[in-house]
Amino acid sequence: MSDQHEGGCVREQYRHWQRIPTRWADNDVYGHVNNVVHYAFMDTVINTWLIASGLDIHEGGEIGLCVESHCNYRAPVSFPDALDAGLRIGHLGRSSVRYEVGFFLADSADVVAEGHFVHVFVDRATRKPVEVPAGLRARMEGLVVA
Amino acid sequence: MSDQHEGGCVREQYRHWQRIPTRWADNDVYGHVNNVVHYAFMDTVINTWLIASGLDIHEGGEIGLCVESHCNYRAPVSFPDALDAGLRIGHLGRSSVRYEVGFFLADSADVVAEGHFVHVFVDRATRKPVEVPAGLRARMEGLVVA
Amino acid sequence: MSDQHEGGCVREQYRHWQRIPTRWADNDVYGHVNNVVHYAFMDTVINTWLIASGLDIHEGGEIGLCVESHCNYRAPVSFPDALDAGLRIGHLGRSSVRYEVGFFLADSADVVAEGHFVHVFVDRATRKPVEVPAGLRARMEGLVVA
Amino acid sequence: MSDQHEGGCVREQYRHWQRIPTRWADNDVYGHVNNVVHYAFMDTVINTWLIASGLDIHEGGEIGLCVESHCNYRAPVSFPDALDAGLRIGHLGRSSVRYEVGFFLADSADVVAEGHFVHVFVDRATRKPVEVPAGLRARMEGLVVA
Repeated sequence: MSDQHEGGCVREQYRHWQRIPTRWADNDVYGHVNNVVHYAFMDTVINTWLIASGLDIHEGGEIGLCVESHCNYRAPVSFPDALDAGLRIGHLGRSSVRYEVGFFLADSADVVAEGHFVHVFVDRATRKPVEVPAGLRARMEGLVVA
Repeated sequence: MSDQHEGGCVREQYRHWQRIPTRWADNDVYGHVNNVVHYAFMDTVINTWLIASGLDIHEGGEIGLCVESHCNYRAPVSFPDALDAGLRIGHLGRSSVRYEVGFFLADSADVVAEGHFVHVFVDRATRKPVEVPAGLRARMEGLVVA
Repeated sequence: MSDQHEGGCVREQYRHWQRIPTRWADNDVYGHVNNVVHYAFMDTVINTWLIASGLDIHEGGEIGLCVESHCNYRAPVSFPDALDAGLRIGHLGRSSVRYEVGFFLADSADVVAEGHFVHVFVDRATRKPVEVPAGLRARMEGLVVA
Repeated sequence: MSDQHEGGCVREQYRHWQRIPTRWADNDVYGHVNNVVHYAFMDTVINTWLIASGLDIHEGGEIGLCVESHCNYRAPVSFPDALDAGLRIGHLGRSSVRYEVGFFLADSADVVAEGHFVHVFVDRATRKPVEVPAGLRARMEGLVVA
């Protein structure tokens, strides 16, 4: 999957931002934040936004399940650096959403990594796909990029 | 990235196996192993194999840095389930290696997830790309699939 | 808290065992399994035993909440080492249980760490303390040490 | 270990503060930040302060190894809450330091947990105990409480 496909790595291409500090345990034996941790950051920026936009992760009837995730790593980052995570939506389907996330050093144009993450919304009990809840969809439209 | 591209999800397509038990903290608020954890499993099966094949992660002159990773999630899994992680190599380049990993329920044909993970080997000090160490390459050829 | 208080670190003092392999990401920048990870191991050996002994973590009416945990670190351990986690119960109260865990290198008498972990059983909905469920208590008695 | 021993849980008793946001994966199956995560927070507030105070975790001759840690949990906390971590030093020895950490809900007097964490400073190569580096000790004295 090429850089083109990922949609580039310029701050202007993202619609929502969250500062994410690193933790001591994020560094691995090679002295940098382990590749796994970037996915914890994706989960965090996406779900923080969803909760602020009305998703009830404890009691809501619909939940978002991850069916695909991907990351391209551009530069190392180390604790105690902080990152700025930029969020946008590349595809907003009937029940699925493709989020695209860019990670930059805090207050910098230096890209650290970029990835995507696909949620399918399902009924909490049956785990069958449902439509993206209307209230969330309206908010999501503000993050969609062409 | 389609299922085709990932290369399928049948046990016979993998060349090396490792049993990976889950941990309590792997489950997230929805009661299943969080999507992030699958990458910790990929890192584990790959690096366990590399160390057994001669890579010295503490003192060796060359180290493998992850430049790309990807996962497609097929079915939920929950602590205390254990998984079987199957490993193969989809591309063995001059300095880069594309590992492909399939996760199955322990002793089952049921696929849980499949992903890939790309290492670029670099000099530990300069972090410049180097050739895959000859000893490792010889061992890796045994994992390559057409 | 002295070694005496922890109750020693000899394999014979534990009543139940679980093999726990390490993961790549468990190592920190100093090349050893990070101190945080030992608590993930405690949670895992305790909850694996509880589930095997009848606790339903997804639907059961009572759940165990951790109110205190502690660990003394005796020796470093590094991925890809595996550990043997020994479990016993130091105090079985009306609603609380003090588990004591010893970590040893796999198939070795070498102690890596020892800790304790206190659960209070509560009603899942109200989160008010309840008696340890009778079925679990009967099983727990087999782990109690003088 | 009683509350008394831990030294209480009032904001005024701590000397240094760091805001720590939670992450999605911090929540466990019971919907709260898992008990393990509090130790990742302790490691983070302590090491962030040490690095800002001159410790070189990548190249420095001395490193701090954790020999003991402990936590008492007072109240649940859930993603996406943020915490304020308060830090003080309860004992500053020749080569060892006992840090005490209090976790409060962000901008609140509500205590979430309190714990301690003991570092022994060792030579990076030999892993033999050494004196706390003089520059660090001078800074640490500002965190010591009676």
